[in-house]
Amino acid sequence: MSADYFKDFDAIPYEGPESTNPLAFRHYNKDKVVMGKRLEDHLRFAVCHWHNFCWDGKDIFGLGIGTFDRPWQRAGEDGLVLAREKMDAAFAFMEKLGVPFWCWHDYDIAPEGATIKESRENFAAMLDYAEEKMAATGIRLLWGTANAFSNPRYMCGASTNPNPEVFAYAASQVQNAMDATKRLGGSNYVLWGGREGYQNLLNTDLKRESEQMGRFLQMVVEHKHKIGFEGSILIEPKPQEPTKHQYDYDTATVYGFLQRFGLEKEIKVNIEVNHATLAGHSFEHEVATAASLGILGSVDANRGDHQNGWDTDQFPNNVPDLVPAVYEIIRAGGFTTGGFNFDTKLRRESVDAVDLFHGHIGGMDTIALAFMKAADLYESGELQSFVDNRYAGWNGELGEKIKSGQLSLAELSQWAVDQNIDPKPISGRQEYLENLVNRYVHR
Amino acid sequence: MSADYFKDFDAIPYEGPESTNPLAFRHYNKDKVVMGKRLEDHLRFAVCHWHNFCWDGKDIFGLGIGTFDRPWQRAGEDGLVLAREKMDAAFAFMEKLGVPFWCWHDYDIAPEGATIKESRENFAAMLDYAEEKMAATGIRLLWGTANAFSNPRYMCGASTNPNPEVFAYAASQVQNAMDATKRLGGSNYVLWGGREGYQNLLNTDLKRESEQMGRFLQMVVEHKHKIGFEGSILIEPKPQEPTKHQYDYDTATVYGFLQRFGLEKEIKVNIEVNHATLAGHSFEHEVATAASLGILGSVDANRGDHQNGWDTDQFPNNVPDLVPAVYEIIRAGGFTTGGFNFDTKLRRESVDAVDLFHGHIGGMDTIALAFMKAADLYESGELQSFVDNRYAGWNGELGEKIKSGQLSLAELSQWAVDQNIDPKPISGRQEYLENLVNRYVHR
Amino acid sequence: MSADYFKDFDAIPYEGPESTNPLAFRHYNKDKVVMGKRLEDHLRFAVCHWHNFCWDGKDIFGLGIGTFDRPWQRAGEDGLVLAREKMDAAFAFMEKLGVPFWCWHDYDIAPEGATIKESRENFAAMLDYAEEKMAATGIRLLWGTANAFSNPRYMCGASTNPNPEVFAYAASQVQNAMDATKRLGGSNYVLWGGREGYQNLLNTDLKRESEQMGRFLQMVVEHKHKIGFEGSILIEPKPQEPTKHQYDYDTATVYGFLQRFGLEKEIKVNIEVNHATLAGHSFEHEVATAASLGILGSVDANRGDHQNGWDTDQFPNNVPDLVPAVYEIIRAGGFTTGGFNFDTKLRRESVDAVDLFHGHIGGMDTIALAFMKAADLYESGELQSFVDNRYAGWNGELGEKIKSGQLSLAELSQWAVDQNIDPKPISGRQEYLENLVNRYVHR
Amino acid sequence: MSADYFKDFDAIPYEGPESTNPLAFRHYNKDKVVMGKRLEDHLRFAVCHWHNFCWDGKDIFGLGIGTFDRPWQRAGEDGLVLAREKMDAAFAFMEKLGVPFWCWHDYDIAPEGATIKESRENFAAMLDYAEEKMAATGIRLLWGTANAFSNPRYMCGASTNPNPEVFAYAASQVQNAMDATKRLGGSNYVLWGGREGYQNLLNTDLKRESEQMGRFLQMVVEHKHKIGFEGSILIEPKPQEPTKHQYDYDTATVYGFLQRFGLEKEIKVNIEVNHATLAGHSFEHEVATAASLGILGSVDANRGDHQNGWDTDQFPNNVPDLVPAVYEIIRAGGFTTGGFNFDTKLRRESVDAVDLFHGHIGGMDTIALAFMKAADLYESGELQSFVDNRYAGWNGELGEKIKSGQLSLAELSQWAVDQNIDPKPISGRQEYLENLVNRYVHR
Repeated sequence: MSADYFKDFDAIPYEGPESTNPLAFRHYNKDKVVMGKRLEDHLRFAVCHWHNFCWDGKDIFGLGIGTFDRPWQRAGEDGLVLAREKMDAAFAFMEKLGVPFWCWHDYDIAPEGATIKESRENFAAMLDYAEEKMAATGIRLLWGTANAFSNPRYMCGASTNPNPEVFAYAASQVQNAMDATKRLGGSNYVLWGGREGYQNLLNTDLKRESEQMGRFLQMVVEHKHKIGFEGSILIEPKPQEPTKHQYDYDTATVYGFLQRFGLEKEIKVNIEVNHATLAGHSFEHEVATAASLGILGSVDANRGDHQNGWDTDQFPNNVPDLVPAVYEIIRAGGFTTGGFNFDTKLRRESVDAVDLFHGHIGGMDTIALAFMKAADLYESGELQSFVDNRYAGWNGELGEKIKSGQLSLAELSQWAVDQNIDPKPISGRQEYLENLVNRYVHR
Repeated sequence: MSADYFKDFDAIPYEGPESTNPLAFRHYNKDKVVMGKRLEDHLRFAVCHWHNFCWDGKDIFGLGIGTFDRPWQRAGEDGLVLAREKMDAAFAFMEKLGVPFWCWHDYDIAPEGATIKESRENFAAMLDYAEEKMAATGIRLLWGTANAFSNPRYMCGASTNPNPEVFAYAASQVQNAMDATKRLGGSNYVLWGGREGYQNLLNTDLKRESEQMGRFLQMVVEHKHKIGFEGSILIEPKPQEPTKHQYDYDTATVYGFLQRFGLEKEIKVNIEVNHATLAGHSFEHEVATAASLGILGSVDANRGDHQNGWDTDQFPNNVPDLVPAVYEIIRAGGFTTGGFNFDTKLRRESVDAVDLFHGHIGGMDTIALAFMKAADLYESGELQSFVDNRYAGWNGELGEKIKSGQLSLAELSQWAVDQNIDPKPISGRQEYLENLVNRYVHR
Repeated sequence: MSADYFKDFDAIPYEGPESTNPLAFRHYNKDKVVMGKRLEDHLRFAVCHWHNFCWDGKDIFGLGIGTFDRPWQRAGEDGLVLAREKMDAAFAFMEKLGVPFWCWHDYDIAPEGATIKESRENFAAMLDYAEEKMAATGIRLLWGTANAFSNPRYMCGASTNPNPEVFAYAASQVQNAMDATKRLGGSNYVLWGGREGYQNLLNTDLKRESEQMGRFLQMVVEHKHKIGFEGSILIEPKPQEPTKHQYDYDTATVYGFLQRFGLEKEIKVNIEVNHATLAGHSFEHEVATAASLGILGSVDANRGDHQNGWDTDQFPNNVPDLVPAVYEIIRAGGFTTGGFNFDTKLRRESVDAVDLFHGHIGGMDTIALAFMKAADLYESGELQSFVDNRYAGWNGELGEKIKSGQLSLAELSQWAVDQNIDPKPISGRQEYLENLVNRYVHR
Repeated sequence: MSADYFKDFDAIPYEGPESTNPLAFRHYNKDKVVMGKRLEDHLRFAVCHWHNFCWDGKDIFGLGIGTFDRPWQRAGEDGLVLAREKMDAAFAFMEKLGVPFWCWHDYDIAPEGATIKESRENFAAMLDYAEEKMAATGIRLLWGTANAFSNPRYMCGASTNPNPEVFAYAASQVQNAMDATKRLGGSNYVLWGGREGYQNLLNTDLKRESEQMGRFLQMVVEHKHKIGFEGSILIEPKPQEPTKHQYDYDTATVYGFLQRFGLEKEIKVNIEVNHATLAGHSFEHEVATAASLGILGSVDANRGDHQNGWDTDQFPNNVPDLVPAVYEIIRAGGFTTGGFNFDTKLRRESVDAVDLFHGHIGGMDTIALAFMKAADLYESGELQSFVDNRYAGWNGELGEKIKSGQLSLAELSQWAVDQNIDPKPISGRQEYLENLVNRYVHR
């Protein structure tokens, strides 16, 4: 019985940094108050069904066979029975782990049926069940989303498909998943355009596809308002994979797209660490960019491998790597509807139930520790003062005149010539600042 | 004497594909009429001073010493004398090569002085000289630009510098270079933000810097209208190098930025092949993206090396690689103010005058041949028909209703359920289309 | 019935460059004599079962469902029945395509059984069937290999597994596949160490694993001699994927490994284009390296996508990209036991039978055209003369003395000082040479 | 006066983790005894002249002008005078920093002359001066090397040059630098083949060049024995940059090369972190590979930027990133002749003298802390026990039989069939092990 899959495990306790118990938290003390709020309320950890309960250990090599032996993945049995077992296992796991949130794609929690109607019936049945589980455990929904990328019908895109019927099919899934997210009290609704891109420019009408996608997002936002969903709508940028090119390449690209369709006040981003690095950016870059544009929504914690060119979706394990990004989140005021989601993935070789605990415990400890270090750094004001000082000139007379548009290019040029200015280089102090951050990381 | 540097070379003739003369064009017959226009008028080749005449063969390894022995690069002589010799050599080269356009950064053509005033005097003197050379040869100006990145004062940015005096210094150069571009009848004015980015997020205020840059670009556009410059203003995207991150990362990022500051109708992009690939895109992707957004301006022809992670700026030499991008340029209506600029770079080991000819001849032949192949493909309509057919459904009733906003998400969803739709995958025919293109490339 | 899967297709004719028939060769005229030999005998094209007939259109995204509708991939039927249908389809395809060779992994052609014995019985049955098909069609075996990577037992390596029983299991497959390769008259036996590497250095004993692998390869070579197999043993280098790091990283690494275990005269390499580029090398680099070390064996034609960081295994389509590598193959004397294998992969969106033809026709035409261009270049001697001239000094007195070991470091140093030598840079003429090659590519 | 360049700085004290003094060590307590030895004796820190004192802040963009204002870099003065000032400054810096070792390229410490003879005279003069400085400060030489890559004569290689006179020129420098290294009591002599590679395969005879390089290395080893130099000869692998391809690509490639020329017992590697990552490897991979092959020599501490594709040579700042590599060094028995060299580079924007201190202090603290964490991990035996257990089967009967060569492929295969073996997957426990390491990093 799947419900018992995690029966050998107790709830994961917080035991502090000295603990050597691999099934205890060393840093994530959810009730610890930092900057006036409990860690749990800052970090808003969520566990996603996707890689944790749906993936069977298959690898990217295509014919590599699943290595996991999860009972709810056994072949030849009624899909709804297995889906209930899977959900039982997931809630048992999340409860023992002690996370406040969960997440799903529609077909993570309900088996896709032979027809659109059957799929919706399955989904409806599982929603009822999910409601029960949530009530019983107190676990809330961070976000829902629709899987509009796995089924062959989506191979050439969902909203960007050359066939408008596929657009319609995706619309039916998204409407249904949005309604479900609202019903379950979800904080966000996420869109990841896994096939909204192209494999090949030769057969693609880029302009037409982007307009299709723009209209789709407008319909999503209209629907949000119509049903009174009060959470955030989030787009999850990714540059590529499975497509050769994905339209939501990175945060800056998404922002340009949103503006083009009048949506920049309506939609935010869900940033994944590994997607950031695949796009050629650091994680902190993506967070800082989103924050500076007012579209920072939520985070998927999955890191990549710097030597591999694909999405490895690994659990975070490097505290100093995370500190600058978490600092930016804190500086932006922290999460409102968002949180840290584990859409992360065990290694295919980590086949046991216990490995799922190790992955999450390590990830949560890493993020919690990075958060506490970043909070210290933020509260000290040391870094912010440095930066404020560096730009102090912009608060002087010249700076204000430029910013407020009082000077034309010709006037400013003339001033520079008249003054015969010769501004000298001032050190950027990168090494000093890196040491400063490390002072907070390693006390 | 530098003026004689190319004295051993005759004008480069067109001799046709059978020629084995390394100092003749085999494909670039400038007077050949393709799609109703001479090749010269389609391609609008330009030679830039930058790598061709200013670079001395130093390498990226910093202390690698220049390998070239250009007479105008000798040490210890009056800067203006050398600048005139350099310009003599450049015009001699361009005339023998037979290109209709040239390009420059301000300090490519005039030596930077000890003060801002002296720099402007030098520049003014060289503009007079340039006017003479242009009149004598008939070579026109594709674009001018200002070098706001080499001098140490720009090490932390020009418009995005923490010091507003550096912004002012850049403003004075840009105003001056814009006025000069207008005076010389330039077709475009280019901005490349080589230091508009960051080395390090810790010391950087991303929001403030982007607003500074936004204001700078607005000033540039205001100045353009004020002086009545009728060419295009172009931004040249690049993801990084020399900075760790450059704000004008790629075309999509630039477009978002332009919208944010109300400039998307005023500024276009100058796409460099190698910058596209460093940003994780194909060249054709950047061209197609710019065309679909209405901001395709001009092209720098420099390709990269797929095994090296920096800007190698090599001459183009692969026809099938270029055909898809050139096809997109043709489909977008071709260049208006833009052209193909050679801001390309000899290999550091190619130390002789003749190597400069080989590089340009090979590059021009490659582009000309790619253009003729792409024109054939375009005129046949074969590829366009395929694409049009692929999206034909979007011109039907369902497609039109979606596009025109007649259906809400809920209505479309309901329709999908009612119809119990089950759209089937339709082959994208990538292999067929690649063969189709190759049919035009290798006749 | 699978045997009829390709019934709507005729044999693919050669129709010449002018043909617009997408189901004809435009360049691959197998009987054309180039450099004294038929093209078919130079190129030795092979079609592999692997991606062509076993892959179902699943993608790297794991839960992306297969898009293909090959009848022999239907669920719930006897494995041997389906395997025969698959082989019927494969031979029908290969016969219509007109290739002289095929290739396989053991479990491509026979279903893996519930036990090691059952697997061997299945394999034996399919070998009989393969022998019949080969006799009936005249199609020969380029190479066989064993799939020691898909089954979960191999998740942590085959010969490099921490468990010696897994080593033994792999040994049983390899012995069986080698014997089968000999029985079918195969020209080569290939080893690809898809799991011979690590996901994680923390749990790995690098030294022990490399010694296990060294012993395994020695056993393979001993077995080859014992059974009198006269073909070549080939290792296929790949840097990573599915593992984080693969031991057979590239040709140079493999050569070092072979020397370490005394195997450098016994084993050669099977170079894949996409593996070369994933390792940071050009294809021609890997070919030239192997040739210079005397270990050039065979080639897998699959190219990658320069913007994607994983193995896309696409059909070759760029002639100038291939010419330098094919030139190196020709310069090395051409293939002996090797050939050009298509272990290539349709795009997942290319779901139809006809797409399989388009892919192979395009790939074969590309290689054939590249070969003819490279042969022209080789026969002209132009490139070789240039290179010979460039190093001519090494055939002079100084060069000979150095090469033959007559001078110690101190003696040579003293000579340099005494002569006060000051060798000057001589142009490497890269641009000229690229133009020279293009002269042969585009006549 | 340069000697006073660092006059405003005191010796850098160790103040412990609580210190907020940016000019103090927080972790590097050189006299602290760890695993029976002082930290200074474990880490053997060295400061190189190269980036620290010779580089002027020029950037990779070629025409980017130096931003630094080091007095010994002023123009127009006698080279030997400036070289002495530079050496004064360097020793003042190293003494205040408190490092036990220094390093140089020949032309870092002595200006290259107009002729080979003049260069040698300059070098001889500076060696005398160096000897004085070393005696006065007690600072020892970690390694010497020759710069056979900056001068234009080396643009197409030193030992691999098409011109044997360039080989001779390099020989004269290397002989001289080796003799100097011996005279100064150096622990190692390093060879970095910055131009030993190619820009372009078309003009390159790969086989000939590798044989030239093989002979060169043999001459170096013969010379070492002849002069009785007792240090190690080290090759520094790098995959590319400035060349498109460098022959000493990575450790595995170097090992293959050494075997080919009978040098694998004579030469070891000097691993640079950033070179490892540019070659597609983790730093720990390169260290573990070298250790497993018995050729681990020394380390250059310079890290790269994961988002940039060139050698950024930054100071190390991430402790958990370094721990696995340092653990491997400890496991290999630690350094013998090697050490941690800072051939690292300030950011071009870090223009002040104090930045040089910040960079080194941060780097030394990072390495010292990583070392102490790795030593704890090593002494606990926890990780080693896990690994030993994982491979325990190889010490059993089956494992021993395989390793000792008692079983042929056929015999082992037969045994597997007879036993009908079916080995099951065993978890690799990656997440557990990553948490284990973090337990040591964050106590």
